[in-house]
Amino acid sequence: MTTVADNTLQEFLDALAAGQSTPGGGGAAALTGSQAAALLSMVLNFTVGRRKYAAVEDEMRGYLARCEELRAELLALVDQDAAAFGAVSACYTMPKKTDAEKSARTAALQTAMKGAAEVPFIVAGKCLELLQLAAPVGAQGNRNVVSDAATSAYLARAGLDSGLLNVEINLKYIKDSAFVAEWTDKVANLRAAAADAYTAATAACSATLGVTV
Amino acid sequence: MTTVADNTLQEFLDALAAGQSTPGGGGAAALTGSQAAALLSMVLNFTVGRRKYAAVEDEMRGYLARCEELRAELLALVDQDAAAFGAVSACYTMPKKTDAEKSARTAALQTAMKGAAEVPFIVAGKCLELLQLAAPVGAQGNRNVVSDAATSAYLARAGLDSGLLNVEINLKYIKDSAFVAEWTDKVANLRAAAADAYTAATAACSATLGVTV
Repeated sequence: MTTVADNTLQEFLDALAAGQSTPGGGGAAALTGSQAAALLSMVLNFTVGRRKYAAVEDEMRGYLARCEELRAELLALVDQDAAAFGAVSACYTMPKKTDAEKSARTAALQTAMKGAAEVPFIVAGKCLELLQLAAPVGAQGNRNVVSDAATSAYLARAGLDSGLLNVEINLKYIKDSAFVAEWTDKVANLRAAAADAYTAATAACSATLGVTV
Repeated sequence: MTTVADNTLQEFLDALAAGQSTPGGGGAAALTGSQAAALLSMVLNFTVGRRKYAAVEDEMRGYLARCEELRAELLALVDQDAAAFGAVSACYTMPKKTDAEKSARTAALQTAMKGAAEVPFIVAGKCLELLQLAAPVGAQGNRNVVSDAATSAYLARAGLDSGLLNVEINLKYIKDSAFVAEWTDKVANLRAAAADAYTAATAACSATLGVTV
């Protein structure tokens, strides 16, 4: 299967810049989240197995395993975002001459748009989890590389904000008002949790680094 | 010449996550900035040559040319960040038995650390320029893809914050107080300009999208 993971950075950036819909902001958000995961993994890889951090070894090993899962999942979400967008695009090619065709096309489009709203929400949720991990890693990880945990928090916040914006943009086109109400709440709840997690992450990194993050 | 641009996304992320110093937060910041540039280029590629946006064609063509330069420069800065870090690491291998050796080592280390502070500042400056471009692109670019200009602003802010944090971390180890004072001012000025540019960029995108960015 073709996957964006096999693209070179140059190829991916060229495709991102081109006048084509995918990869777009959703894919860039997922890749940025994957980088945020990788940076936390880096801090953890400089922490586990070191005598100085033996007291937190088990906890840090657990975080590392989860960061590595999130890194892979977020990278896979670059492809999933493009697939969800492709499903929306495919609907636009459906016939719309008869009333039956029009209503089938509208129904298919609405279903595809719900799918396109879901993917960036998943991206945002995984970025939230990274922000939540950045606090204990920033507080207890190898202090020589804690600036990388802070950078992780900056990138995770950007991935999260981008994901939630893409959800909100998609919701504008969805006619199912119960779905829209439910997802508007989900976005608001995730945003509130993210604000708390970001504050905790930057406070932990600031305390370790002696620099305001 | 080996360049990170030829790495696959998988290879780059694996290297970022590994227990090695480069690529680290500085490289991730530069790549994120390059993605921010690519996303503005995408919006501009959906704008130039379209009858609907003919009135702003010349202006948008100019922005596109600049975004493409910034995209290439920020990608090259991933390698430059690793090289600057490598120069610092090399100093740690210098001998330090005699007083002469110690003072040569300290002098070399201080010079290398100034270089390592400069690269993330350049990254941050280019991210500032992208934030400044996001306002006119968000206001006048193809409105169907303006959410990508907003995502660009989120990513550029993350690249900028990461770059400036890395400058500040490096400054803590530099003994030349005149240099530190000068660069502390430069960081503060860039941060203030970035806050203004971010506010303008998100306001412009919000107005076009009808969603708070």
